[in-house]
Amino acid sequence: MNAPLPQHLLPEIRQRETPPALLEALKARFAERCSTALVVREQHGRDESSFAAPPPSAVVFAESTLDVADAVKLASQFNVPVIPFGVGTSLEGHLLAVQGGISLDVSRMNRVLAINAEDLTVTVQPGVTRKQLNEEIKSTGLFFPIDPGADATIGGMSATRASGTNAVRYGTMRENVLALEVVTASGEVIRTGTRAKKSAAGYDLTRLMVGSEGTLGVITEVTVRLYPLPEAISAAICSFPSIEAAVRTTIEVIQLGVPIARVELIDANTVRMVNANTKLGLREEPLLLMEFHGTPGSVKEQAELVQELADGHGGNAFEWASTPEERTRLWAARHNAYFAAIQSKPGCRSISTDTCVPISRLADCLLESVAEADASGIPYFLVGHVGDGNFHFGYLIDPAKPEEREIAEGLNHQLVARALRLEGTCTGEHGVGLHKMDFLVTETGAGAVAMMGSIKRALDPKNIMNPGKIFSI
Amino acid sequence: MNAPLPQHLLPEIRQRETPPALLEALKARFAERCSTALVVREQHGRDESSFAAPPPSAVVFAESTLDVADAVKLASQFNVPVIPFGVGTSLEGHLLAVQGGISLDVSRMNRVLAINAEDLTVTVQPGVTRKQLNEEIKSTGLFFPIDPGADATIGGMSATRASGTNAVRYGTMRENVLALEVVTASGEVIRTGTRAKKSAAGYDLTRLMVGSEGTLGVITEVTVRLYPLPEAISAAICSFPSIEAAVRTTIEVIQLGVPIARVELIDANTVRMVNANTKLGLREEPLLLMEFHGTPGSVKEQAELVQELADGHGGNAFEWASTPEERTRLWAARHNAYFAAIQSKPGCRSISTDTCVPISRLADCLLESVAEADASGIPYFLVGHVGDGNFHFGYLIDPAKPEEREIAEGLNHQLVARALRLEGTCTGEHGVGLHKMDFLVTETGAGAVAMMGSIKRALDPKNIMNPGKIFSI
Repeated sequence: MNAPLPQHLLPEIRQRETPPALLEALKARFAERCSTALVVREQHGRDESSFAAPPPSAVVFAESTLDVADAVKLASQFNVPVIPFGVGTSLEGHLLAVQGGISLDVSRMNRVLAINAEDLTVTVQPGVTRKQLNEEIKSTGLFFPIDPGADATIGGMSATRASGTNAVRYGTMRENVLALEVVTASGEVIRTGTRAKKSAAGYDLTRLMVGSEGTLGVITEVTVRLYPLPEAISAAICSFPSIEAAVRTTIEVIQLGVPIARVELIDANTVRMVNANTKLGLREEPLLLMEFHGTPGSVKEQAELVQELADGHGGNAFEWASTPEERTRLWAARHNAYFAAIQSKPGCRSISTDTCVPISRLADCLLESVAEADASGIPYFLVGHVGDGNFHFGYLIDPAKPEEREIAEGLNHQLVARALRLEGTCTGEHGVGLHKMDFLVTETGAGAVAMMGSIKRALDPKNIMNPGKIFSI
Repeated sequence: MNAPLPQHLLPEIRQRETPPALLEALKARFAERCSTALVVREQHGRDESSFAAPPPSAVVFAESTLDVADAVKLASQFNVPVIPFGVGTSLEGHLLAVQGGISLDVSRMNRVLAINAEDLTVTVQPGVTRKQLNEEIKSTGLFFPIDPGADATIGGMSATRASGTNAVRYGTMRENVLALEVVTASGEVIRTGTRAKKSAAGYDLTRLMVGSEGTLGVITEVTVRLYPLPEAISAAICSFPSIEAAVRTTIEVIQLGVPIARVELIDANTVRMVNANTKLGLREEPLLLMEFHGTPGSVKEQAELVQELADGHGGNAFEWASTPEERTRLWAARHNAYFAAIQSKPGCRSISTDTCVPISRLADCLLESVAEADASGIPYFLVGHVGDGNFHFGYLIDPAKPEEREIAEGLNHQLVARALRLEGTCTGEHGVGLHKMDFLVTETGAGAVAMMGSIKRALDPKNIMNPGKIFSI
């Protein structure tokens, strides 16, 4: 059971009607690919966030850029919101029809259009998921590193500027999207960027669209960078006497410029939940999960240096994994954390935080927040892409108990305020969506948000593209 | 002697008057820091491009963000253009007062504001030059890698999305600017971004401003990423029997994912010019200049692999340099190329090209263009950041002979058309400025340029921020 949205996020005046004439026009254009069945609408009206809103009035399944353009043109004609939908893994309410409107499902646009292995690029339709992409390019010896955990679509990952475990070495969608095809709010098809690795050709529309959360257009093609599969990969797990010891080790690794590919923190709570759920039998202490990519020589150098740094902070029980199977076992702890946590408190929902701070501030930000969470009595799990200064608390609340939500939101507020004081951001990778609109203003200032609003109004004068997300206009 | 601008870039109706009342107000506010002396105006009314336009009507020397905001507010009040000026190294006419107005010189805003060595970031005023920055952070063991050749300002490099020799490993200003302070067209001060390494907090205003060429606001503070000075650096020069051999070697280096820090092509023409000018005594054959950064082990691995690849294409005479002095000598060939070329034809101007293509298309793009340039009879030099697929011809024309300019522009047109056919861009790093406005439309399409125009109108409704650059509105 999800909580209803707070009233200020769902003003009644904003609930726009979908005129029957639009539904008729969509049915005429898309036939059975336009559904008004409640079950379909409900499935498209929620995501992994803990909020609820009335479902969209229809779902259109697009199979081509032309489908998207036609759907947007019809919606524009009737002044009705359009909410792009991939596989629904948003954590921030991006997919909720808070102002009504139609859901535009692009999951059937799932073809890999061009593999340019010799240029380390690939062009895909937006509904291709990251696992599908890696499967389809396997034979090239290349891979796409961005891994937000969920098997999200490349379109959705672009729209939310996703990142995840490999970002510490390979960057985020910001660094890895080269070019887009976008259907604008008027239904026009534009291209941003080329396959050239760099460009100074006018405004960076690619990066304006990346992270715009569907509010400026619908992404219909994405060209991303690929990387050669490393010659050698080695993964290790190391437990520490305290979170602080793990974090101080991470800070030193980053400050020394070690090109570590992954460095993930898992707190002892989470290890216990994962052990209970998967029988991995891990030491129930804070862990760092690490991965090193490179030539055999470079991997060895990195691993030795990191082991030395960990030793200095009491790290112990380095367990190494070099085969894919061993690595999968180690990474299971990280990948199962969310579900193990949810199952540790039956019926609970998780309220996720997403702050990201400069690496030198990580210990301050994390340790005070852990102390607050411990004192609150709300169970939680804590995982983090700590090499980037980014971490997530998941406060596990009983949705039937508003007081638990209140405590969790209070913790989140204190954490965000702390992160901003430490020159960080309220969201490292999940996006603003509905949940962080107020934080955005605190973080960037009213002037910057007003500038975003000006851009929004200029590119979407009817305010039909996923309205009510990022900022209220 | 620079050529007058083509008429279509300088429509008379666009020459806006600077009312005497604005000059009086600027004098009242800035006293001797507002100059109307012709010599000062002329110095601020040109750059390294080959075009000329009437100088700005005044130059204001800003010493603070407040100075910038006040100057912009006054200009806005009188509806007069403002052209930000750093050190004037633009190659594309960015600094020309094509619609009249005032030049806003930020070169005195040259303080390093905050060195956060532990986070690998630094925050500077826009007038800090890249060499000054590296000098001031020397003691931290960190460096700022972006090197466009000229000792440009960090503000100007941000505004034009500059890159240069190290971009193949470290990225461009696009990847390395974390946050900006910007004075908007209404004189308001906003901040984009934080010091966090990544963020999903709303529209990416940072990257919208990076590369906007002064048309959306004046950059008054820049936070950039720094990198640990590599433990080991090794540079090498290698000559090849043909440009093709050098280019094929480069393509293999990139496709294998070698993390080479620099790989620069210099053609035999340019080597001859540099030898004549500096007595370096280099073999007069196409050269690759390379630099490897990393641990001693990794540098050795990289160098051995590249040497093997070069051998496969007939590369010879690898000359290695490991001390800073030896490296400086090798790099002199690259850094002196432009001036050596200019001096090879007294009185000449260089018309620079800046195409960038996917690495697999580099040989096709380059070799056909070399054949055309050779056939034209116009002397030229050719250097390239070939690891990124980016290269520059400099066609050396006599500005008193319009027919030479016409031939050079014809070569440039053919080259750009070729690069676009090969899925590349007309500008890898110099920006659009005045010279590539038509190419931009061909490259991105009218729809994308119209979107840029919508953003421009929304953020600068009076069209006072460096108007007439990137696109005509």
